[in-house]
Amino acid sequence: MASKEGKDKSKGAAVQLKTPKGTRDWTGADMILRDEIFTTITDVFKRHGAVPLDTPVFELKEVLAGKYGEDSRLIYDLADQGGELTALRYDLTVPFARWLAMNKVQQIKRYQIAKVYRRDQPAVARGRMREFYQCDFDIAGTYDRMIPDAEILRVIYEIFEALKEQIVIKLNHRQILDGIFAVSGVPSDKIRTISSAVDKLDKVPWADVKKEMVEEKGLEEAVADRIGEYVKHSGDIPTIVTLLKADEALCANSDIKQGLEDMELLASFLDAFGVPSNKVSFDMSLCRGLDYYTGLIFEVIAQPSATAAPAADGNGKPAKKKSGEEIQVGSIAAGGRYDNLVGMYGKTQIPCVGISFGVDRIFTIMKAKREKEEGKARVRETDVYVMAFGGGSFNGMLKERMQVARRLWDAGIKAEFTAKTKPRLPQQFKAAEDVPLGVILGEDEIANGQVRLKVLGSGGAETDEKDRGQLVSEDDLVAEIKKLLI
Amino acid sequence: MASKEGKDKSKGAAVQLKTPKGTRDWTGADMILRDEIFTTITDVFKRHGAVPLDTPVFELKEVLAGKYGEDSRLIYDLADQGGELTALRYDLTVPFARWLAMNKVQQIKRYQIAKVYRRDQPAVARGRMREFYQCDFDIAGTYDRMIPDAEILRVIYEIFEALKEQIVIKLNHRQILDGIFAVSGVPSDKIRTISSAVDKLDKVPWADVKKEMVEEKGLEEAVADRIGEYVKHSGDIPTIVTLLKADEALCANSDIKQGLEDMELLASFLDAFGVPSNKVSFDMSLCRGLDYYTGLIFEVIAQPSATAAPAADGNGKPAKKKSGEEIQVGSIAAGGRYDNLVGMYGKTQIPCVGISFGVDRIFTIMKAKREKEEGKARVRETDVYVMAFGGGSFNGMLKERMQVARRLWDAGIKAEFTAKTKPRLPQQFKAAEDVPLGVILGEDEIANGQVRLKVLGSGGAETDEKDRGQLVSEDDLVAEIKKLLI
Repeated sequence: MASKEGKDKSKGAAVQLKTPKGTRDWTGADMILRDEIFTTITDVFKRHGAVPLDTPVFELKEVLAGKYGEDSRLIYDLADQGGELTALRYDLTVPFARWLAMNKVQQIKRYQIAKVYRRDQPAVARGRMREFYQCDFDIAGTYDRMIPDAEILRVIYEIFEALKEQIVIKLNHRQILDGIFAVSGVPSDKIRTISSAVDKLDKVPWADVKKEMVEEKGLEEAVADRIGEYVKHSGDIPTIVTLLKADEALCANSDIKQGLEDMELLASFLDAFGVPSNKVSFDMSLCRGLDYYTGLIFEVIAQPSATAAPAADGNGKPAKKKSGEEIQVGSIAAGGRYDNLVGMYGKTQIPCVGISFGVDRIFTIMKAKREKEEGKARVRETDVYVMAFGGGSFNGMLKERMQVARRLWDAGIKAEFTAKTKPRLPQQFKAAEDVPLGVILGEDEIANGQVRLKVLGSGGAETDEKDRGQLVSEDDLVAEIKKLLI
Repeated sequence: MASKEGKDKSKGAAVQLKTPKGTRDWTGADMILRDEIFTTITDVFKRHGAVPLDTPVFELKEVLAGKYGEDSRLIYDLADQGGELTALRYDLTVPFARWLAMNKVQQIKRYQIAKVYRRDQPAVARGRMREFYQCDFDIAGTYDRMIPDAEILRVIYEIFEALKEQIVIKLNHRQILDGIFAVSGVPSDKIRTISSAVDKLDKVPWADVKKEMVEEKGLEEAVADRIGEYVKHSGDIPTIVTLLKADEALCANSDIKQGLEDMELLASFLDAFGVPSNKVSFDMSLCRGLDYYTGLIFEVIAQPSATAAPAADGNGKPAKKKSGEEIQVGSIAAGGRYDNLVGMYGKTQIPCVGISFGVDRIFTIMKAKREKEEGKARVRETDVYVMAFGGGSFNGMLKERMQVARRLWDAGIKAEFTAKTKPRLPQQFKAAEDVPLGVILGEDEIANGQVRLKVLGSGGAETDEKDRGQLVSEDDLVAEIKKLLI
């Protein structure tokens, strides 16, 4: 009987120790880097007057219904345990639109950094998870043309400058794009499907896209060829605007005319905002999948460091894809203007323009770079490790270590010590492995009101345990440490 | 037909615009205050070498099973859409224990600030929601007695000092408490249920607790009276330790002996850590509901500002409850030592001690205080509003406003302007309502490379729109603003 009980007990303990499929725990260096990215992004958002919004992790099912097309099958439902039917949020845009409509907010700059949930096939290596962060900044309200749009691009520019990542912002305009399809002869009911074929141009060659348009989607070959002529263009805004303006057929189309005026305004605003012209590329092949965009659309492409050569103040075109060895890391942020989405929830349309940062991809790029540059990243932020050392009758100096730690904490300094009464010195050095400074207490020094302050090597092996550092009076300790930490 | 279509459309739009029951959106001043609390708490956690942990919002159901007793009925299950059965996390302690066991982590200081989910009856006014934040700090690892426990109390002290909230930390020790029940004559199988009766002493009078013990739980009246004699004591640690040590019956119990040694150690450590003795109260009636505590237990009680009179350096007892008009606001953080929980998931026991802050209650207290003190809290963090003013032929100076905003953003200053080509001046002042500084552009000044810098009143009404502020050269603007923002 006793043995059976024992067996049941061990069975009880044999819970599968894992996180659910497509989810992970975050800790250590990964978590610190991710927090650093969040802080940098948030600082820029706040610099532009944005306020944070936090919505519940789940929404009423009817709020999410009919917003994601066939991707709705990826939504996580909560179990029906009585009461309302709810589901985990799929993105941050729909909760924002729900909140705007619900609170009848007429204008706001809001940001939200939060996890979203998609029951997709996870691809952990490529950073596709079922639980992942989105980081959104949107400007809602009725303003004059292109001013908020230009500010969004300035926000993108500031963020990647702060993250020290080389990027190019690809731009296009839905009115120009749809106008070009119309002028080329695409029937209006085929514009969205042809648009989604063109959207693949960054992954497959033109021949394949043309084949899809003609053979699968029944477009006339001559129409496809005309589209092909237009969408191959990319370059800085004035160049492409001039090129398109030279085309009489295009200029006769009022949508295109409006779109080109927008792009000219945008170029002048970006200039006033100090966004270098080599950071943007007016790319006629950029389409963006979502139906709800109504004006400017954009996608941020990370440039591999090796191709980051063109100087920030240069006036050249953005770095081009090179054949073969150097691969674009793909889109790391995307967005656009959506003037009609909020109206789906209520009677009032509220024009919006926004950007969503793919934090996981930015994280993946920065992590790879850091590992190459710096070796092992620091896990703790602790700046000072307080230790003690003594001879045979050494009592461990626990109280003294506590008092020194307290002095440092009182001064706002990040400090730790070993939570043992009589720790051995190697044990203390090992515990201080990733800490830059050590304060070493000895009985003789303490008797004189002094301690030793020592710059620690990076890792126990490199720290010379014989060198006890410089003598500092206890009263000067905080000031001396602050000098070294600058 | 057209009218029917119209009807269907409006029906489609008539989604119920609400968040699910027991959840809310956070924004504006509430969100800023909450973030401020999080930042303050996180700073202290990091000062003590803690690293952040982030776990998925849902866990495998079997991980949560059997951890919460009858409260398990409050767990939110996710729908079974194929694959694993999962549920939203109920607290942060169980995910932490799962993570420790899964990664075979032997020692760590970790913190986690995250939402947890309970399908309880919400009581919005009292701050009881179905989705709410917990904020946990735990020290896991085998260390010498009471050192991590004392550091947790120091963390509590530092946090509420930083938040400028008056508190008292009530302390007790499970070994002393259980020993007292044993010495008083409580049968060992009744110790937990008697303990939970005593736990109600902060809400109901002794007579009611005694009645519950004797009439409902079948305890002998003499035993209940002996308990009553013990649990009425509270005071600073040395006083209560001396009192209990004078009792021979108690000292003969080895659990109590060990517990009293712990409390003496703790008092000396708190002294070394500079935690004033009037911040802690050894309260024999503190029991804490959860079964898994094995040593020190504690609860943080907010003191209404009016009773916060005893000076921090005083050596008196903590402020006592007053009869009637002044009501304790209740527990705002709680925790204790739990040495056996991690062992439920694997073969290795990892001793832990930790604290969980009830951020929503702290938020409620601070919000009420702020509203009383400061009136309306600032919603945006924007420091400077850039505006323009001119006569009849005024062109709005959009580009100039953009250039000045860019100059400020480049210097890291939080700045905004009105996203209109020709905004009226009152419109700009209204938009700057909660912004402390205004930069005012005029055509004459700009021609001389100058702008006007103006301290704005709090609210448009108090701002004298005629006073255009001091003339500053554009090149000095950043420096002048930084002086005013200090």
